Amino acid sequence: MLPQPLGQLDPGFFLSFEGPEGAGKSTQIARLARRLEEMALPHTVTREPGGTPLGARVREVLLDPQLTIDPLPEFLLYSASRAQLVTNVIRPALDRGEVVVCDRYADSSLAYQGFGRGLDAALLRDITAAATGGLWPNLTVLLDLDPRVGLERAAQRGQPDRLERTDLAFHQRLRQGFLELAGTQPERFLVLDGTQPASTLEEKIWEAIQSRLPDSRG
Amino acid sequence: MLPQPLGQLDPGFFLSFEGPEGAGKSTQIARLARRLEEMALPHTVTREPGGTPLGARVREVLLDPQLTIDPLPEFLLYSASRAQLVTNVIRPALDRGEVVVCDRYADSSLAYQGFGRGLDAALLRDITAAATGGLWPNLTVLLDLDPRVGLERAAQRGQPDRLERTDLAFHQRLRQGFLELAGTQPERFLVLDGTQPASTLEEKIWEAIQSRLPDSRG
Repeated sequence: MLPQPLGQLDPGFFLSFEGPEGAGKSTQIARLARRLEEMALPHTVTREPGGTPLGARVREVLLDPQLTIDPLPEFLLYSASRAQLVTNVIRPALDRGEVVVCDRYADSSLAYQGFGRGLDAALLRDITAAATGGLWPNLTVLLDLDPRVGLERAAQRGQPDRLERTDLAFHQRLRQGFLELAGTQPERFLVLDGTQPASTLEEKIWEAIQSRLPDSRG
Repeated sequence: MLPQPLGQLDPGFFLSFEGPEGAGKSTQIARLARRLEEMALPHTVTREPGGTPLGARVREVLLDPQLTIDPLPEFLLYSASRAQLVTNVIRPALDRGEVVVCDRYADSSLAYQGFGRGLDAALLRDITAAATGGLWPNLTVLLDLDPRVGLERAAQRGQPDRLERTDLAFHQRLRQGFLELAGTQPERFLVLDGTQPASTLEEKIWEAIQSRLPDSRG
């Protein structure tokens, strides 16, 4: 049963999805977008890296398998895309009172380049604070998944390239990183077992959004 | 008269050229490279942004007039290119004992994005320290030029696009920024009046290099 329409939100609601590849972020974002659409609730769906003309170009660079990119320049490129996205897309949409749904945000950098690649956490946090202007999501949905399951899923979809290119130990550090980030900010994070059915996850995510929306909902 | 061959340098010598567009950096770098070539002195000439496959891609993005790039993401992109350049090109060349000549380096970011665009100097310095691993040139040649002269020169070469796109006040802040950076580190900087004849500048630059080369020169 669909909840009642919520009307225009003020000052907006910022939601990010995090987790490894193969955890089901895209599926859940599509389902959530459909709900928001059905309820005629103003929303913006975007992603990292990308979301702006600059971000799209940076994304091409980051995903080009021909390029050698060390962890620090990799993080700086993500941060460049993020800074432009916050200024041009996320902040304006929130100011218009929209629900902003972002496929990955700064937590991904802290997990991938910090826990995964070993960059200094304090440096990452300082640069992230500058790049985001201190903007963090109202809610971050972490779809947690055993890396071995994610690897199998990706292989079944015929997309084994990126997951297989790095080792299992990396993905286990990544998972621990995400869980550790969630543990330090339990009020912001909703951690869900990504092996649950998509419809179950969809309901849990929607409940969490409803419980956190501003009281101003109509 | 050409100086005597200097032989292999250890641990290398890092030289950067700074200054506004139209100040004559390219001419001086070409002349210096020819001298180093004639002396069979191992050297690497590179530039920012660029110098690596990643840097070349980042350069394309930064110079694309179609893109909107705010000062902070702009700085992060320069820093990403710089970090990869230091790791893959500059450090290895210095370790081989070469003379490294770089067309722009971190001072350009401090001047353009700091003094020019008003980004916080402490933030720029922190990120620059991380991106460079603390590596600064042994000598930085600043070709100083009144922005109005640089503008005229660029127009005469039929390249008025980038200089004319920003205003004179920006270029005056930029000039003051470079001079202020030079003032705080007089031992690293050689400030030269860019209106002098190219051959005069070439001689002065060469003298400065010779006086600062390690005593190990043969």
